[in-house]
Amino acid sequence: MPSPIRILGIDPGLRRTGWGIIETAGNALAFIAAGTVRSDAALDLAARLCQLHDGLSTVIEAHGPAEAAVEATFVNRDAAATLKLGQARGIALLVPARAGVSVAEYAPNAVKKSVVGTGHGDKRQVQMMVRMLLPKADFDSEDAADALAIAICHAHHRGGDRLAKRMAG
Amino acid sequence: MPSPIRILGIDPGLRRTGWGIIETAGNALAFIAAGTVRSDAALDLAARLCQLHDGLSTVIEAHGPAEAAVEATFVNRDAAATLKLGQARGIALLVPARAGVSVAEYAPNAVKKSVVGTGHGDKRQVQMMVRMLLPKADFDSEDAADALAIAICHAHHRGGDRLAKRMAG
Repeated sequence: MPSPIRILGIDPGLRRTGWGIIETAGNALAFIAAGTVRSDAALDLAARLCQLHDGLSTVIEAHGPAEAAVEATFVNRDAAATLKLGQARGIALLVPARAGVSVAEYAPNAVKKSVVGTGHGDKRQVQMMVRMLLPKADFDSEDAADALAIAICHAHHRGGDRLAKRMAG
Repeated sequence: MPSPIRILGIDPGLRRTGWGIIETAGNALAFIAAGTVRSDAALDLAARLCQLHDGLSTVIEAHGPAEAAVEATFVNRDAAATLKLGQARGIALLVPARAGVSVAEYAPNAVKKSVVGTGHGDKRQVQMMVRMLLPKADFDSEDAADALAIAICHAHHRGGDRLAKRMAG
């Protein structure tokens, strides 16, 4: 039995950043924790980014993940929305990296494919599969569920990478 | 003679983030320092954001600004470029805020209007006016010149705010 690897998944957003921690050992997955870091819309942007920074720092200190994964989304709605997301995403990438935790990025359809089996699953399907793959999962928002899906995606892909390396070596 | 206020202007970008420090006392402006924080395109995104973070942290430690200003740009080129800029911008807002430095944001045309006199000046005009307003200015990139322009814009607006408050009080 390989020793478990603890993975942090992050679904970044300025209002709400979802996070989820799982452990993977071989093919086994286990839910550890999940939650949502919220920023106060009444504050200015810099203060809100500090709230996201502090919330994610607390999660990393509390759960000590070995690896992190962030979704490589971009909204196509409008440039202002994309800029906002980018700002939150910058923090989501920075915090684990500064804590010495490697950060992988996955496209949204890779995340869906990992948990639903197709790149076109909707939010409801993703949540249902997260509950099936992690029966003990307890999440307080859609964003936390998405963060767990991102962590599952990373668990699958890092396994694949290890296998590929083992076969190549 | 009012005591001088030290202002940090930041022109964020993932490849190059320009910074400029000026001092303002009444109507007088003085150049203190300027430069460019670069990220290594060969590294992954999280590591590059750490480089911007560390570079800006060093500037703040070295020069101890009391206030900061960041341009509220967004590229309309494409969503991927906007997302990249957003990520760098998130760091540019976070670093001063975490150091306890207040951060103001200015639209690009407000910055141009402050230094060129019109909201439609081009890069060359902005640089020329930065050299006129700060004769001792020494900058190593367009981005550093833009950062000085942002700092000048903040010097003008914060003065205006003070004046407005004094008149209202």
